[in-house]
Amino acid sequence: MKYSIGVDIGGTTSSMGIVNKLGDILFESEINTREYLTFETFIEACHNILLPEIEGLGQDNFKGIGIGAPNGNYRYGTIEHAPNLAWKGIVPLANAFSEKFKLEALVTNDANAAAIGEMMHGAAKGMKDFIMITLGTGVGSGIVANGGIIYGHNSFAGEIGHTIAVRDGRLCSCGLSGCLETYSSATGIVRTAHEVLADTTRKSLLRDLTTITSEDIYKAALENDEVALEIFAFTGKILGESLATAVAYTEPEAIILFGGLAQAFSFVFSKFIT
Amino acid sequence: MKYSIGVDIGGTTSSMGIVNKLGDILFESEINTREYLTFETFIEACHNILLPEIEGLGQDNFKGIGIGAPNGNYRYGTIEHAPNLAWKGIVPLANAFSEKFKLEALVTNDANAAAIGEMMHGAAKGMKDFIMITLGTGVGSGIVANGGIIYGHNSFAGEIGHTIAVRDGRLCSCGLSGCLETYSSATGIVRTAHEVLADTTRKSLLRDLTTITSEDIYKAALENDEVALEIFAFTGKILGESLATAVAYTEPEAIILFGGLAQAFSFVFSKFIT
Repeated sequence: MKYSIGVDIGGTTSSMGIVNKLGDILFESEINTREYLTFETFIEACHNILLPEIEGLGQDNFKGIGIGAPNGNYRYGTIEHAPNLAWKGIVPLANAFSEKFKLEALVTNDANAAAIGEMMHGAAKGMKDFIMITLGTGVGSGIVANGGIIYGHNSFAGEIGHTIAVRDGRLCSCGLSGCLETYSSATGIVRTAHEVLADTTRKSLLRDLTTITSEDIYKAALENDEVALEIFAFTGKILGESLATAVAYTEPEAIILFGGLAQAFSFVFSKFIT
Repeated sequence: MKYSIGVDIGGTTSSMGIVNKLGDILFESEINTREYLTFETFIEACHNILLPEIEGLGQDNFKGIGIGAPNGNYRYGTIEHAPNLAWKGIVPLANAFSEKFKLEALVTNDANAAAIGEMMHGAAKGMKDFIMITLGTGVGSGIVANGGIIYGHNSFAGEIGHTIAVRDGRLCSCGLSGCLETYSSATGIVRTAHEVLADTTRKSLLRDLTTITSEDIYKAALENDEVALEIFAFTGKILGESLATAVAYTEPEAIILFGGLAQAFSFVFSKFIT
């Protein structure tokens, strides 16, 4: 059992790879999640990409498939009501992957999977108390305390993205108001951009665009666009307050930030770093 | 080793008792914490009350002393910078109790102690994921996940009272702003009373008082005083939002509320129960 397959399902992009026991990545690929309106066609696409590699290394040398997905339920191997995916309801993902690939498959929350990865091979090696936060299309989180992932009573713990950052704040796709995800994610920062552009008449590179993406805001910030810098500073303040609350909950040794917005770290936390 | 001593240190009142292995309380007593300006005189007072009972049951039959205290640190046996106590700095409480009583002594956060108690003998018997919240002078909490207390990296986890309930909200004795404790505690509800009385001219039984206590607000609510009822409803909304965030963190099977404000539950959650 030399190899494992890892699949990370994101709201926009999904990644897949083959790793050995040391965590070395032997193969990797990406697909656009939104092109697959059903999970069956998505799994078909993953299979088409991975099959030649599996056959090359030998099917018998594979231990199984680990899948990280938004709203992934470790206990039942399902994705349940993920607001950022087109696949609605309860999706029996582990079973479907297992049948297609003839390998054991396990599903967990994408951020929990990231936390386990960091604990095994990454930034959290040796830590017993830490929080992993993914700032992507949404905001996911994996909380490790006493050396183990906090799964909760029904495997839905660790949803820092859906904690209330602003009372009576922005409507979230989950149905609640003021969730952190509506501020500190790729979609949240675009909402902030629209708000700032609507509320002020200030000049900005962003005004010339017909649609605004988080990448546009990042590029404008690189050009010292004041509105873009303010958008990042606001995003950072909200995120920082929520991280303070996270520390009060589990007092981690470290908080590990990951995802697109984390790559704009210097802008997000511009007020706090010198 | 038939008996144990339990001491619960509160900002206002401290309780002590002797229990047997089944959790039966054989003796209990209370003292006013604020009368003791040093922890040494406090321990002296506890000793004076408990000594006749210990001698009656036989010193050799005692296993030890378990102490719950605000900002109690399990790892070091200390109370560290508790804002609601007169004993400042780092107090070596476990050692001092142990020396005075000639018994082993352990200290933990008061809410963690309450959580362990509920798990052993109370409402959380058999649960592996739950949250215990004490709504007293302050707001304490003990979080149990995967069957164990979350202590955190330096034993300061589980401080839900110092999570941000309202952004840029009320100044807290801990130095932060908007902490849940400044709204949903005995002291917080009094602050809400002052705010409502200051902002409106509405009639209320509370206007006739020179000083207002949480008990006064409770009594006024029993008389259907509209201002008092509104104070409780506001308190309940803030608390409810914070509990929603707590569920997003650890997805507990149950949240157990305890303390003075929990006894006014029907007023606090009047909007939610019928």
